[in-house]
Amino acid sequence: MRPVFFLTDFGLADPFVGIMKGVVLQHAPHARLVDLCHAVPPFDVAAGAMMLEDAWPHLPTSAVVVAVIDPGVGTSRRPIAASVGDRFVIGPDNGLLGNLLGGEAGAVVRAIRPSALVRPDRSATFHGRDVFAPAAGFLSAGGAFADLGPVVDDPKPLDVQLPWLDDDQVLHLSVVALDRFGNATLNLHRRHVAPVVPWLIEESPLCMVGDCEIRGLARTYADVPGGSPLVYWNSADRLELAVNGGSAAKLFALGPGDEVLLTRAGRTPSSMAVRKLP
Amino acid sequence: MRPVFFLTDFGLADPFVGIMKGVVLQHAPHARLVDLCHAVPPFDVAAGAMMLEDAWPHLPTSAVVVAVIDPGVGTSRRPIAASVGDRFVIGPDNGLLGNLLGGEAGAVVRAIRPSALVRPDRSATFHGRDVFAPAAGFLSAGGAFADLGPVVDDPKPLDVQLPWLDDDQVLHLSVVALDRFGNATLNLHRRHVAPVVPWLIEESPLCMVGDCEIRGLARTYADVPGGSPLVYWNSADRLELAVNGGSAAKLFALGPGDEVLLTRAGRTPSSMAVRKLP
Amino acid sequence: MRPVFFLTDFGLADPFVGIMKGVVLQHAPHARLVDLCHAVPPFDVAAGAMMLEDAWPHLPTSAVVVAVIDPGVGTSRRPIAASVGDRFVIGPDNGLLGNLLGGEAGAVVRAIRPSALVRPDRSATFHGRDVFAPAAGFLSAGGAFADLGPVVDDPKPLDVQLPWLDDDQVLHLSVVALDRFGNATLNLHRRHVAPVVPWLIEESPLCMVGDCEIRGLARTYADVPGGSPLVYWNSADRLELAVNGGSAAKLFALGPGDEVLLTRAGRTPSSMAVRKLP
Repeated sequence: MRPVFFLTDFGLADPFVGIMKGVVLQHAPHARLVDLCHAVPPFDVAAGAMMLEDAWPHLPTSAVVVAVIDPGVGTSRRPIAASVGDRFVIGPDNGLLGNLLGGEAGAVVRAIRPSALVRPDRSATFHGRDVFAPAAGFLSAGGAFADLGPVVDDPKPLDVQLPWLDDDQVLHLSVVALDRFGNATLNLHRRHVAPVVPWLIEESPLCMVGDCEIRGLARTYADVPGGSPLVYWNSADRLELAVNGGSAAKLFALGPGDEVLLTRAGRTPSSMAVRKLP
Repeated sequence: MRPVFFLTDFGLADPFVGIMKGVVLQHAPHARLVDLCHAVPPFDVAAGAMMLEDAWPHLPTSAVVVAVIDPGVGTSRRPIAASVGDRFVIGPDNGLLGNLLGGEAGAVVRAIRPSALVRPDRSATFHGRDVFAPAAGFLSAGGAFADLGPVVDDPKPLDVQLPWLDDDQVLHLSVVALDRFGNATLNLHRRHVAPVVPWLIEESPLCMVGDCEIRGLARTYADVPGGSPLVYWNSADRLELAVNGGSAAKLFALGPGDEVLLTRAGRTPSSMAVRKLP
Repeated sequence: MRPVFFLTDFGLADPFVGIMKGVVLQHAPHARLVDLCHAVPPFDVAAGAMMLEDAWPHLPTSAVVVAVIDPGVGTSRRPIAASVGDRFVIGPDNGLLGNLLGGEAGAVVRAIRPSALVRPDRSATFHGRDVFAPAAGFLSAGGAFADLGPVVDDPKPLDVQLPWLDDDQVLHLSVVALDRFGNATLNLHRRHVAPVVPWLIEESPLCMVGDCEIRGLARTYADVPGGSPLVYWNSADRLELAVNGGSAAKLFALGPGDEVLLTRAGRTPSSMAVRKLP
């Protein structure tokens, strides 16, 4: 049976995730069940979509992923399932799956229709248990994808904040996630570099966060002295800010959405000398 | 082998749960291991019992559940195992399993006796590892239930706070759990409605929490505007208080045990106009 | 396939652990995956080493354990794997595995060399995903240990703070871990008793923490009244300080590294009457 991976904003303070797994095992008793993450900030569809995208290349090709960040549960938003390569991903049609559907040519999306699969007395507030987990168990056990429901041509795209370049050629980035170590992931993916800041391929950047300037890119934490900040491409090819042996979140008092600036190390526009971050 | 589900108040800051799983796999190397929840508030037998009851209908019929909220570990309180339908549940005899034993006609309870199963050098403080996990592994691997020990006729019942109706026909509820979203579960189950507040079947209630009055029952979060509170039957058929896109725990500064009042929407007794919640 | 156990300081706020599991399943699709703990304090190699040692005897003999507390990721520190009895343990060569390698005669340690196993484009910051998880999957699936790389004769030992005896025969202990219940584990293992404080075998100790003195050893929490502190050998044979139904961490405001004193109950040296803990 296909292994089933779970990504939610349910947290682990409650039995919600365990109950979803119980339902999956009812349908697919031999499935491996793996937690991707349940600490997605509540209702944060964009953060969940990033985690999905970053984990995706490392999952077994047979994986079924069930993702539930679903502030619209119980409304008319569609529950969907997608076939992407040899894997399946299931979740609400609110952009959460958008990063996976956009890139791959072969993605097919279907709306999960009420059926024998979905509990007739399904709740209005816990579709993770009543809709998504049954669908995951069904696909894990070898059920036919086409049986889930009709093809959907217009899955909702993901609404994300992109980096932007101001008139001084300064790139405005924002913090999209803070991990346990206080590393701050920024909204610049390596794939953005060529179209947005091509000079970054050959030139060393100057990163400005609060009153601090960090010159150049590091490769790993220990490239700088203990307690010093660094900027580097993280393991998912996103630009990240960290402190060797410490916490960038604490040192810079960073939170999600906070702004970080990036420019060429060799040029500091005059306007920048007095620039103050909020 | 039967899948084994775990519910404890051990948290995940320590390897205690992982160690229990290691022990289960020693006895049942092919068992699926599933976390129900490990964030039961420390020593809170009633909260754990509610989680067990809510998860129970969604577990595979072959499940073995091991539940450890055990402030009396190492004392004379009995370790017990129960056969309930086709499932088994294992834990200390302190009321934790009470919700499962009361309802089903066919429950048989046995005391787990020291044996080859239980480590002869068992600790006095970690029976999850030394008593309950071995029993769970034994049952998962197909061991005979009757071999665990003698039948117990008097398992300890669960001690819970029930809702009560005052002379003004106002129902006094209390918060029994707060989930990650700040949703507050109240101690009113749908099965209480007919015997306690029969008018709630046909009439719309007025819920009072602090200075706020919430009229009527919602079906799901999005039934009210963002930031507004709602009252609804949650996915486990318990009355719950939430805020659409927000946190009822924060908006009302609610904690476990706090009081919430419920009456008929159509009648507000004069005494209520000046009622202040503590 | 061998079950794979995971111990990290990654926390559960991010998908890092789930991604490692995805990689393991790529190599060993039928492996059981079990979390030991992911809440090791960031960079705390000694705390992780203690958890590994305490869990070790309770794991199935076929276990593969992958342990990642790795502040030096991406530097020249070696990734290693060790065969200890019938089990394997994998991690960075920074002392983390030291407790397991020291005790057992038959441990063989190998350096994991870059190979087809390790991703050619491995990151500099996430060897849990790119080096350790592939090695764990390889061993779980039955891969030959000798194929991982050359034997290492000098794995880095663990650097730990040992208890010390002052001139007044007072033993200075320190808190090495605080669990969810606020129980404080001290750096005295039963195996230290005979060489360091032989009188503790036959005599009852006096434990001093802050202004509080605790006489004698308890067997379990309920040996003392609710709210009272106790000292006892915990389930891993380490001396531990707790409060029955409460939290020693809170009562004594204890943190990792804080000092706790131990002496013979029958003798209180005069110098101790005025001793104040910092």
